[in-house]
Amino acid sequence: MIKGRVKGKIWSSRHVDTLPGGALLEVEIDGGDRLIAFDPLGCDTEEAVLVTQGSVAAAYFIDRTDRTAPVDALIVGSIDETSGK
Amino acid sequence: MIKGRVKGKIWSSRHVDTLPGGALLEVEIDGGDRLIAFDPLGCDTEEAVLVTQGSVAAAYFIDRTDRTAPVDALIVGSIDETSGK
Amino acid sequence: MIKGRVKGKIWSSRHVDTLPGGALLEVEIDGGDRLIAFDPLGCDTEEAVLVTQGSVAAAYFIDRTDRTAPVDALIVGSIDETSGK
Amino acid sequence: MIKGRVKGKIWSSRHVDTLPGGALLEVEIDGGDRLIAFDPLGCDTEEAVLVTQGSVAAAYFIDRTDRTAPVDALIVGSIDETSGK
Amino acid sequence: MIKGRVKGKIWSSRHVDTLPGGALLEVEIDGGDRLIAFDPLGCDTEEAVLVTQGSVAAAYFIDRTDRTAPVDALIVGSIDETSGK
Repeated sequence: MIKGRVKGKIWSSRHVDTLPGGALLEVEIDGGDRLIAFDPLGCDTEEAVLVTQGSVAAAYFIDRTDRTAPVDALIVGSIDETSGK
Repeated sequence: MIKGRVKGKIWSSRHVDTLPGGALLEVEIDGGDRLIAFDPLGCDTEEAVLVTQGSVAAAYFIDRTDRTAPVDALIVGSIDETSGK
Repeated sequence: MIKGRVKGKIWSSRHVDTLPGGALLEVEIDGGDRLIAFDPLGCDTEEAVLVTQGSVAAAYFIDRTDRTAPVDALIVGSIDETSGK
Repeated sequence: MIKGRVKGKIWSSRHVDTLPGGALLEVEIDGGDRLIAFDPLGCDTEEAVLVTQGSVAAAYFIDRTDRTAPVDALIVGSIDETSGK
Repeated sequence: MIKGRVKGKIWSSRHVDTLPGGALLEVEIDGGDRLIAFDPLGCDTEEAVLVTQGSVAAAYFIDRTDRTAPVDALIVGSIDETSGK
């Protein structure tokens, strides 16, 4: 997974019909790259989050809805704390 | 997913027979890299789009046609608006 | 998918037995990186091609031979023309 | 796989319910990039580890729990020694 | 696939039990990045090799052992010769 920070939200009214309803957040990864992740947790701007990518992210929706979703990035947790250096 | 902007279209008359018919758009990602994505939405040049990559993109075609498609990038939405910074 | 240009061919006589017979071409991606892709189309040197990567590329072989192939990059089309900028 | 070195640990009390219980370690890859990997081995800070990424990492959990896990990076081994240059 | 050159070997005595027995080689990719790939071919140091990545690499083990392996990089061939430029 990768660590990132929520920077904003995007809206898409014209989309493929299998895109699940819910928040699509813009997340900045360490280093400055950005990606758009589906957020099932209701995260706030500037919250530190843990993001899973690829088919692993889509599998989250198969478990819940029995259909695939065209989502390749998922916020799987809000990060409380980090130890180490 | 990643955000990008449609920059043009490509044509391929000689292709593998499982490549689905439809528009193949050239999309520029933030940072300048480009990829070619299948467009099921009819997007225009300079439109801001949301792109899903990898096997998640191919799964879109399995749902619709019951066969796999050799497509690893799919436009899943047109972006209306972005909040945040 | 990504656009690239065929730069040469590689030969491997000692390989895993599930590697399918056929041409393995060296393709240069915009930016200068190179990858090796399986070519089912008989492309020439300097031809502009469209390449699909990952498990999506391997799925092409499952459809045809009913067995998996350890191939993660596939030329899916020869590019005729590109519009846009 | 990639080689890395354990740099710390993260905690997430608010997470999707399919995230497996266990240690989530921050691993620094050669070159300086960092990722968060699930650790089934009990690795220590500064330990050299081998990390597998993508759906291959998630498959580890399907074998054990018969359910998918939204984990795309897994520590598969602690590195004893490296030969070569 | 990508071309690389074998640079050494790694040993891991403490590993997840599904990691298959066999050689884990350090391979340097053009550009200088390194990855660790499973070697079913008995390659030597400085040998030029062809590497497949991702779930495609893991599928090699499912065919042979009927169980998944947490391996996301596999040497699929030794490169004899390269034409082109």
